[in-house]
Amino acid sequence: MDNSHEFYMKKALIEARRASSEDEVPVGAIVVYNNIVIAKSYNLCIKLCDPTAHAEMQVITAACGYLNSRYLDKCILYTTLEPCSMCSGAMYWSKLGHLVYGAKDEKRGFSLFKNHLFHPKTKITKGVLQYECTTLLTDFFKKKRKLKEK
Amino acid sequence: MDNSHEFYMKKALIEARRASSEDEVPVGAIVVYNNIVIAKSYNLCIKLCDPTAHAEMQVITAACGYLNSRYLDKCILYTTLEPCSMCSGAMYWSKLGHLVYGAKDEKRGFSLFKNHLFHPKTKITKGVLQYECTTLLTDFFKKKRKLKEK
Repeated sequence: MDNSHEFYMKKALIEARRASSEDEVPVGAIVVYNNIVIAKSYNLCIKLCDPTAHAEMQVITAACGYLNSRYLDKCILYTTLEPCSMCSGAMYWSKLGHLVYGAKDEKRGFSLFKNHLFHPKTKITKGVLQYECTTLLTDFFKKKRKLKEK
Repeated sequence: MDNSHEFYMKKALIEARRASSEDEVPVGAIVVYNNIVIAKSYNLCIKLCDPTAHAEMQVITAACGYLNSRYLDKCILYTTLEPCSMCSGAMYWSKLGHLVYGAKDEKRGFSLFKNHLFHPKTKITKGVLQYECTTLLTDFFKKKRKLKEK
């Protein structure tokens, strides 16, 4: 596996930890263009009171703004969690060049859908720093459950 | 068919025509809560340089802001075009109560995907003012093609 994927996924993990510290579901994402991070964000659904405010949606919007283009065909998007159908759909419209993700989402991840939600040209790499990305999420929900039980 | 659906779809069509007059793909959407329109918008992908700026995405964000809730389970969303996987995913996260749409989208509409993209509680009504909604789109693309041929 390309080591640079781990380098960038660590940056996405920093974003995910920010989400966690703000009591948001810890998912982080970044967009890389020509080896430069042009967008970074994390899940902001609670803060923005907006169910569409997933990390991936925000970095797609931000990266398109940065590039002044509706297409991210020359970009790599790193996200700590397998994207859902909404975010995969956004990646389709952006004609994303390459998606790299960490943890698997067994409840709402795109791989649950038989039909391919992505643009045919989008390359997909999965499982980068999967353990770290998954642990961040499972720890978060464990803490949530414990607080509920109290 | 409930006549009120046509009443509200006409309002979504007004939004779609606004898109058309601004050279955006003519899709419009509104959200209704307790018989009141709480959000309205149209496709703004070109203007905002953002592939996620579909009419439905914007009214979901706006309606959640209005209600100060991440859930639209008591709302009806009217859109002139069958939602894509991105917008259907956003409706899933918002637990939308009822979706009503006009034209069918044979290229990217949610019904192309075998697995259900929606929340199990979301009611779906299709084909309201289908002819008007479809014609607006086909006329728009006809004009575009003619301009290209010139």
